[in-house]
Amino acid sequence: MNTTDPISNTLFEDLRQAPMATVREAIRSGAYQGHTAGIGLGRLQGNLAILPADYALDFFRFCQRNPKPCPLVGVSDTGDPMLHTLGDDIDIRRDVPLYNIYRDGQLDGQTPDITDLWRDDLVAFVLGCSFTFEQALMAEGIRLAHIEENKTVAMYRTTIQTQAAGPFRGPVVVSMRPMRPPESIRAAVITARFPHAHGAPIHIGDPAAIGIPNLATPDWGDPPALADDQVPVFWACGVTPQAAVQEAKPPLCITHAPGAMLITDVPEQGPGN
Amino acid sequence: MNTTDPISNTLFEDLRQAPMATVREAIRSGAYQGHTAGIGLGRLQGNLAILPADYALDFFRFCQRNPKPCPLVGVSDTGDPMLHTLGDDIDIRRDVPLYNIYRDGQLDGQTPDITDLWRDDLVAFVLGCSFTFEQALMAEGIRLAHIEENKTVAMYRTTIQTQAAGPFRGPVVVSMRPMRPPESIRAAVITARFPHAHGAPIHIGDPAAIGIPNLATPDWGDPPALADDQVPVFWACGVTPQAAVQEAKPPLCITHAPGAMLITDVPEQGPGN
Repeated sequence: MNTTDPISNTLFEDLRQAPMATVREAIRSGAYQGHTAGIGLGRLQGNLAILPADYALDFFRFCQRNPKPCPLVGVSDTGDPMLHTLGDDIDIRRDVPLYNIYRDGQLDGQTPDITDLWRDDLVAFVLGCSFTFEQALMAEGIRLAHIEENKTVAMYRTTIQTQAAGPFRGPVVVSMRPMRPPESIRAAVITARFPHAHGAPIHIGDPAAIGIPNLATPDWGDPPALADDQVPVFWACGVTPQAAVQEAKPPLCITHAPGAMLITDVPEQGPGN
Repeated sequence: MNTTDPISNTLFEDLRQAPMATVREAIRSGAYQGHTAGIGLGRLQGNLAILPADYALDFFRFCQRNPKPCPLVGVSDTGDPMLHTLGDDIDIRRDVPLYNIYRDGQLDGQTPDITDLWRDDLVAFVLGCSFTFEQALMAEGIRLAHIEENKTVAMYRTTIQTQAAGPFRGPVVVSMRPMRPPESIRAAVITARFPHAHGAPIHIGDPAAIGIPNLATPDWGDPPALADDQVPVFWACGVTPQAAVQEAKPPLCITHAPGAMLITDVPEQGPGN
């Protein structure tokens, strides 16, 4: 994330108050390359995975089979960079603040604009993300320590396996938020309303039961602080498909950089029908 | 449906009481080719669409973009007739009572076994169906006239358009169930719990508002009787993807025959994750 850059931090504060057209232009022009938490409030944000068409059918199946970690909210037509179902003018080549480029499963660089990399055989998949349900939790008065402390949520590999599809396979990755038991119950009920954004938790309590040996050493994100009266609450996490892509090793895969999501035009409640 | 055949009707009554292994064997052997309403209670049933891989990515997108009429519950691997995510031993070539064969969008025959037609490039899509939520409605005491009268639910083309994907496009088709207003509200709440089976209604009340000129002349199914104290309640319907397939005119498409669904091994609540 670029929010440690002082200039970006100033811009970030501006964008938090800005109308969406300003936000989109700042991202599209490359002026803002930072994270999108707290920007474009009320709009659905999404994880991104762009893959060659040869891999698209299997990745589609992977998402269908693993809807909690991989809740699809939009898929482009092959070769078409415009995401017609998520807005009137969303160009997936430029409307994400920062992109990660993976070649053969390995990170090979970052860029704020993938216009030069776009090809006629690419398919863009947009997956719901936890920003959606975190907004809902905070709106209902549930405090989230990692946000208040400006940290990255703790994420862990589990021993729960995804249902494989072609070359896509691997463990379910979870994010963890500490809560008091009454909050954890309310949080389960609230997040169940957002199946397009990971839905209800997949586990509450004993980390060892899902193969996490030590909460203090997350695989991604910052170590969490768990108070004596708190239990760990685990949600399926959008890092799951990224791990599956690294397993599949497609010649090219383009994702959002961590935290730098696509902000869509559709409401947080999800693309209706 | 073959339930007008006296032999099938006797078998149907037997199968209503039978354990699932008996039901599956009766279907797999071709002995039972009738409808599956009321059989295999508690298990998720699904509509079927089998398409060549050339069409699979667009059909997948069509379902993703139109989740209320086309709620995907399972997708086979290309060329693999076993639906591993919906049961331990579901062979999509034989486990549907009766199949419709479409060539270039036109019905070209029916058969209880498609083993001879199976090819290495075929992909099977299973979509949730209204049987699931109808069971839930009846379990909560909401009476469904078409079931009590052994009729087919009334279905209508609407002026609501699906979101197209490649060659797949066309109107949203709805099914209609008459209810008193308090029931319609309860029914909306109950069916919202089944997003994998068309979910909440898409319309209640005035048929003309969604382009239905006359409830007495449905496009499919039997004419309904609407009492003075009832309102029409409309759900997105699994005929929608069939209409889209007829529009797309793929060289081959195999579906279930109307009412003769795939009975899966997963619970009615849907394939969990």
